[in-house]
Amino acid sequence: MDFVMKGDLCYSDSPECLTTLPGGYLVVEGKQCAGAYKTPPSRYAALPLIDYEGKLILPGMCDLHVHAPQFAYRGLGMDLELIEWLNRRAFPEESKYADLAYAGRAYDLFMQAMRASATTRLCCFGTLHAPATLLLMEKLEAAGLRGYAGKVSMDRNSPPTLCELNAQQAGQDCEAWLKEAGERFTRIRPMVTPRFIPSCTDALMTRLSALARRYDAPLQSHLSENRSEIEWVRELLPEASGYADAYDRFGMLTPRTVMAHVVYPEEGEIALLAERGVTVAHCPASNINIRSGIAPVRKLLKAGVRVGLGTDVAGGQTIDMFRAITDAVQASKLYWRLIDESSAPLTLAEAFYLATVGGGAFFGKVGTFHPGYELDALVVDDTGLPHPQPLTVRERLERALYLPGDCTIVQKYVAGVPILS
Amino acid sequence: MDFVMKGDLCYSDSPECLTTLPGGYLVVEGKQCAGAYKTPPSRYAALPLIDYEGKLILPGMCDLHVHAPQFAYRGLGMDLELIEWLNRRAFPEESKYADLAYAGRAYDLFMQAMRASATTRLCCFGTLHAPATLLLMEKLEAAGLRGYAGKVSMDRNSPPTLCELNAQQAGQDCEAWLKEAGERFTRIRPMVTPRFIPSCTDALMTRLSALARRYDAPLQSHLSENRSEIEWVRELLPEASGYADAYDRFGMLTPRTVMAHVVYPEEGEIALLAERGVTVAHCPASNINIRSGIAPVRKLLKAGVRVGLGTDVAGGQTIDMFRAITDAVQASKLYWRLIDESSAPLTLAEAFYLATVGGGAFFGKVGTFHPGYELDALVVDDTGLPHPQPLTVRERLERALYLPGDCTIVQKYVAGVPILS
Repeated sequence: MDFVMKGDLCYSDSPECLTTLPGGYLVVEGKQCAGAYKTPPSRYAALPLIDYEGKLILPGMCDLHVHAPQFAYRGLGMDLELIEWLNRRAFPEESKYADLAYAGRAYDLFMQAMRASATTRLCCFGTLHAPATLLLMEKLEAAGLRGYAGKVSMDRNSPPTLCELNAQQAGQDCEAWLKEAGERFTRIRPMVTPRFIPSCTDALMTRLSALARRYDAPLQSHLSENRSEIEWVRELLPEASGYADAYDRFGMLTPRTVMAHVVYPEEGEIALLAERGVTVAHCPASNINIRSGIAPVRKLLKAGVRVGLGTDVAGGQTIDMFRAITDAVQASKLYWRLIDESSAPLTLAEAFYLATVGGGAFFGKVGTFHPGYELDALVVDDTGLPHPQPLTVRERLERALYLPGDCTIVQKYVAGVPILS
Repeated sequence: MDFVMKGDLCYSDSPECLTTLPGGYLVVEGKQCAGAYKTPPSRYAALPLIDYEGKLILPGMCDLHVHAPQFAYRGLGMDLELIEWLNRRAFPEESKYADLAYAGRAYDLFMQAMRASATTRLCCFGTLHAPATLLLMEKLEAAGLRGYAGKVSMDRNSPPTLCELNAQQAGQDCEAWLKEAGERFTRIRPMVTPRFIPSCTDALMTRLSALARRYDAPLQSHLSENRSEIEWVRELLPEASGYADAYDRFGMLTPRTVMAHVVYPEEGEIALLAERGVTVAHCPASNINIRSGIAPVRKLLKAGVRVGLGTDVAGGQTIDMFRAITDAVQASKLYWRLIDESSAPLTLAEAFYLATVGGGAFFGKVGTFHPGYELDALVVDDTGLPHPQPLTVRERLERALYLPGDCTIVQKYVAGVPILS
């Protein structure tokens, strides 16, 4: 079904340029956007018009890194640092997903929150349990969302309840899951998901890399999140020149790879990530909450590395991507002030671009309202933010991003389909 | 009217110790708290019981630094740094409050948001306009809030629309306002408010200091927010040994003074603030948004400086004090990671203490549920944060603080009086 939406449009033309069209028209042809117009061309005159007068219409947000099973304890245990936090919060919670009834309850809450959120596309971690991960994918797909989910692979340095038997078994389990998920789901696709170097033996990494190629699946993992973790990787793989190389040795750095964090890239690693076309999921809230630091986003961008944003729940406390945008701006200001005054802070327009076009590129042509892009859109009611003077659409957008709690997403389109009833 | 409230109580016993009482009883005698109990003593058996079963009951929050006229543009212009932001956002907006009709509209929105917020006590800046500031005080008092508001004084380095004629006139205007406000209002009291050193001549500072003593009024201002501002103060008052001394020379550092920010205290200044009994309003969001940096809160606390939290709208984008608490934790983690690993991050319990007891001390015995404290309390419905497993009251509090957008404050008591209808 083709149609036209009318409202106050905001979208990125480039990283620096946020375009607004007050009372503009957005033409939708099937899954795709046919363009944003001040006045719609006459050839679209016969299409049905959905009037969202006075509401903001924005591209959907792309959350490149979120742990579905950690949603259950978001906002808890934030006084801990990474490794302690994994042992005391993440691993005990993730163990519960062996119980499919528990997984169903927890993933229902995740799915409901994700559906209501600003996110239209996501890359998410499940647990190592294939049945629970299939259930998660089923729920996300039924909710109308698009993107990737991964059964986590981990066969060392993990608690007994979250450690696969050995590399061979873990590889077989991953392959069986890849097959089943690939056959059952069309909008939420499987993604190979080694947890991170410390959790995966070399033998498992070799198998997972081969599986990604054989099943034409993308891959996600964690890279250079925290100083003690980086030190641990160095001990585990002394022959690698660094953490990024530890993945590269297994052929895991490709244009179909998302690496979360990259807070402390070493000499040469930034160039390697750019060369391999890897997408970095910048997760500012998580990096602060679990005391990792601040990722050098400006340096990554200057070097041509692809960057999108991730909420990283539950390292990040919220799945709200509007908050991730302003968190990215705030973190970049502190990076500039405290670490490197030659790294200019991200503007709000740039962070908005990262959350939409930047992350969207991982899913195809996604993230803005140019013709030919898949039509992911949010319809935002910002009347909960009254103001004593007239505001421009750009100002209303700024305010909605900085104060998302006072706005309501009243409709959300994913690849042209409205998903809120 | 005396009464008893029942609910899931959380309050501070000390900076490190957060006490919870699931299904506990809070006894209110007049304005005061008569204690929190697992089982209420029999002498209170005849008091009416208000049952907030399943809801969190917390002390009210104290916002030590907020600019009422800047609420109108919160969340806007955040890509600017302090001085540019003052010139392009703060000053043009504040100029509008010469128009009492505009002030009425804008302050209605501020008052409504403040009433609905977690804040029960505040220290707020108005503008230099006495009529608009009286209107602000009238609205805040009618809303049931308590605390202080200040007509701003500024007679140099300000745009023509926001510059008082000279020190004599500015002093007379402040005095007339102090008199009228002091006579008209009982719960929102006047506070002497020199904007900051760069905006006030020595002659004006001398007068304001005398007025504060003559009218027994507290005083608020800004101290060491931003490096270029500190440099400016050094040029303006080369005879002062530092920014704090620039105030101290006028007798403005006293136990009845709130100084916002203190991001870059110089050698000896921390000890001076401790010695004078000044309360520092730590405003983490604002310090990040306008790129000032991170205040050394741990150092201030170790030195015995009194510290509370401020939202500093519109340097901070939100008046939400729950967010200020978690912002303070997050900022302290980055301070620890990026500036000084000997400054331990604030725990959530400590930041909660700062927002309640820490700031509350400026208003008397305010900020916790110990007997004899004035009873400021929030009743929080956190059912918007469903969870797949049982949570303790402490965990529910953590989650409410980290995810305030999903909670609702259903009732708020200020000095024993419910203020939400």
